[in-house]
Amino acid sequence: MKRVFLRNRIAVFLLITSVTVGFCFGQSPAKIVEDFKASSVNQPGKEYPQVNSEGRVRVQIKTREAHKVQLDISAVKYELTKDTSGVWTGESAPQDEGFHYYQLWVDGAAVPDPGSLYFYGASRWGSGIEVPAKDQDFYALKNVPHGQVIELPYFSKSNNSMRRCFIYTPPGYDKDAQKRYPVLYLQHGGGENETGWSNQGHANLIMDNLIAGGKAKPFIIVMDNGTWNMARPPAGERPAQWPPKGWADGFTKTLLEDIIPMIDANYRTLADQQHRAMAGLSMGGMQTRVITLAHPEVFSHVGIFSGGSISTEDLAAAPGFKEKIKLVFVSYGSRELENPRAGFGGNPKENQEKLKDAGINTHFYVSPQTAHEWQSWRRSLNEFAPLLFTN
Amino acid sequence: MKRVFLRNRIAVFLLITSVTVGFCFGQSPAKIVEDFKASSVNQPGKEYPQVNSEGRVRVQIKTREAHKVQLDISAVKYELTKDTSGVWTGESAPQDEGFHYYQLWVDGAAVPDPGSLYFYGASRWGSGIEVPAKDQDFYALKNVPHGQVIELPYFSKSNNSMRRCFIYTPPGYDKDAQKRYPVLYLQHGGGENETGWSNQGHANLIMDNLIAGGKAKPFIIVMDNGTWNMARPPAGERPAQWPPKGWADGFTKTLLEDIIPMIDANYRTLADQQHRAMAGLSMGGMQTRVITLAHPEVFSHVGIFSGGSISTEDLAAAPGFKEKIKLVFVSYGSRELENPRAGFGGNPKENQEKLKDAGINTHFYVSPQTAHEWQSWRRSLNEFAPLLFTN
Repeated sequence: MKRVFLRNRIAVFLLITSVTVGFCFGQSPAKIVEDFKASSVNQPGKEYPQVNSEGRVRVQIKTREAHKVQLDISAVKYELTKDTSGVWTGESAPQDEGFHYYQLWVDGAAVPDPGSLYFYGASRWGSGIEVPAKDQDFYALKNVPHGQVIELPYFSKSNNSMRRCFIYTPPGYDKDAQKRYPVLYLQHGGGENETGWSNQGHANLIMDNLIAGGKAKPFIIVMDNGTWNMARPPAGERPAQWPPKGWADGFTKTLLEDIIPMIDANYRTLADQQHRAMAGLSMGGMQTRVITLAHPEVFSHVGIFSGGSISTEDLAAAPGFKEKIKLVFVSYGSRELENPRAGFGGNPKENQEKLKDAGINTHFYVSPQTAHEWQSWRRSLNEFAPLLFTN
Repeated sequence: MKRVFLRNRIAVFLLITSVTVGFCFGQSPAKIVEDFKASSVNQPGKEYPQVNSEGRVRVQIKTREAHKVQLDISAVKYELTKDTSGVWTGESAPQDEGFHYYQLWVDGAAVPDPGSLYFYGASRWGSGIEVPAKDQDFYALKNVPHGQVIELPYFSKSNNSMRRCFIYTPPGYDKDAQKRYPVLYLQHGGGENETGWSNQGHANLIMDNLIAGGKAKPFIIVMDNGTWNMARPPAGERPAQWPPKGWADGFTKTLLEDIIPMIDANYRTLADQQHRAMAGLSMGGMQTRVITLAHPEVFSHVGIFSGGSISTEDLAAAPGFKEKIKLVFVSYGSRELENPRAGFGGNPKENQEKLKDAGINTHFYVSPQTAHEWQSWRRSLNEFAPLLFTN
């Protein structure tokens, strides 16, 4: 197991680095296409932030008194400039399509942009921006039948505390009281929480659109909090083992002893292994990998998005996995695979091919021109969901 | 109708003033009780903001570069001071028990506090703080059976656009597919939206606790967006009529033609006048008042929280209201009634007494030591809900 964890440590480091550290300064070049429009995730009535057709993000904030204002996005800080009326404006280099976390620095204070909606990531509620994507139709809010996103507080015995989860029920769930549904347990990444998959992932809209198009079977999605307190190693030190032994034990216990029984007791689920899937992004993918390898009697379909892959060695060490698992889906953003620093537990594509040779139903997906970010994971869910509960 | 609207204009002005204008500067006095604790609505793991036993709010933010940082709460700005490590700290005068919106000013830029959770009010997503209240048990998250809060997108014909509402279903709603429930349509105030009653109002927890204690009948609550674009009159001018004629027409149409039919079609409601209530706070109370006076054939129970009252003149002009309405509940925060500028459409207590004399079942509630703020409205719902659907 140790070796397996080590293989994933670089993905974790990349995530931590990309969301918490602004390590260099940049300036946008002179030629900027002046077709900026308000971001689709602005607060109601707010003109800024804006995005142009190049994917540049332009922010604006008013203060006569400040001396230095910066936009901090994708780990780069961009200087804003002040006009004569005290309005500061500035823009970033072009960003990938999709969703990005960002923040402002006002005279050295890191603060959310008062113009944007707020999303939980990088272990904080902060600003987010949406760069329109060519394929954004698959997660667009349309006039099709919509499922519900349910917020439910519940008591967790294994934690002796109240917890909260979000549950997607597909369109028509409340119409036919006899019908039962499969369930996907879908996990967020490090520094995120149970709100991520619906707020910035649009899991509900992706499912509504797939179901309306006849492309996926309706199923329930459970989005709970898998946060694991990842103590970071001292700066410059490589830990002997990362993540540390037992890192997934707490969430495994909560998932198996609290969440799944609570969902099966309160919602009309098909409460067996054949109708239960688990997937997650980044840290949530690593959790999915560890939990499904250890518990193939609980889950039949596995989705690992930017969170590692499963080797034939893993397979050999996981009794029952080969026989019981009906799908192993692995995905990455193309820019992740191009990164020469990335390890990913061996080559994820090769690992998937070896699993296929070993007789497992596998699917490998690469999100074009995206990195370790939500557009990769939205697309991954859109590719993964149609494959669920069909075999 | 004109006179009726005029009576309510002061409440509207008070609301606008209290949430958007920081008009004076204050300093906290020297003696401060040093028993500050992190606010219950902080972001996970954040030490600040904090509140002490006096109800003072202490905020903290780090920046070596700023020259002036202020805490802006309840329309007063308080100066922060910087220590040698660049950490700015400061506190407010004692605040009323309950929830308050606030913001920071960093060198002249108005921004959310990066330590707090964010709530929609004052027409923005911004910081909120919770001053522990002696009676906070009634909205506390406890290990009792919990209802669901459902987020549902839906298409509105009358607006030709997608809208979103939140729906509370009581504990057990999904257990008995035969049972049908009454419905309360519950509206937010000006500058707020459909998230307010569950996020800062805790309507779901109030109901869960009442139902667990056998104090209220289980019913569905629908929380939709009643925002009306209140164009403010030019500074210094008193408008001829405020709110302008027809101000509630848009939401009336949306509620009657879209929201209620959608809810009755998709949830197990008791879809008749006897099992349908409407209530709201501030602007939502004004909407409740206008809509129920005009449509007593639709609603049987009426709750107006800090949003005016119903006079005998109103009654005379509203055919069917007296015969059909089973409850008129009116409430205010005690500090609102003490305010000599307040009009409230005549004296609300006297209006309620006159309605009672006219044969209507009335209930008048005053929230002790609170103003035009959420603690008044949480308490109002807690008093109102047990009276619903009992007669």
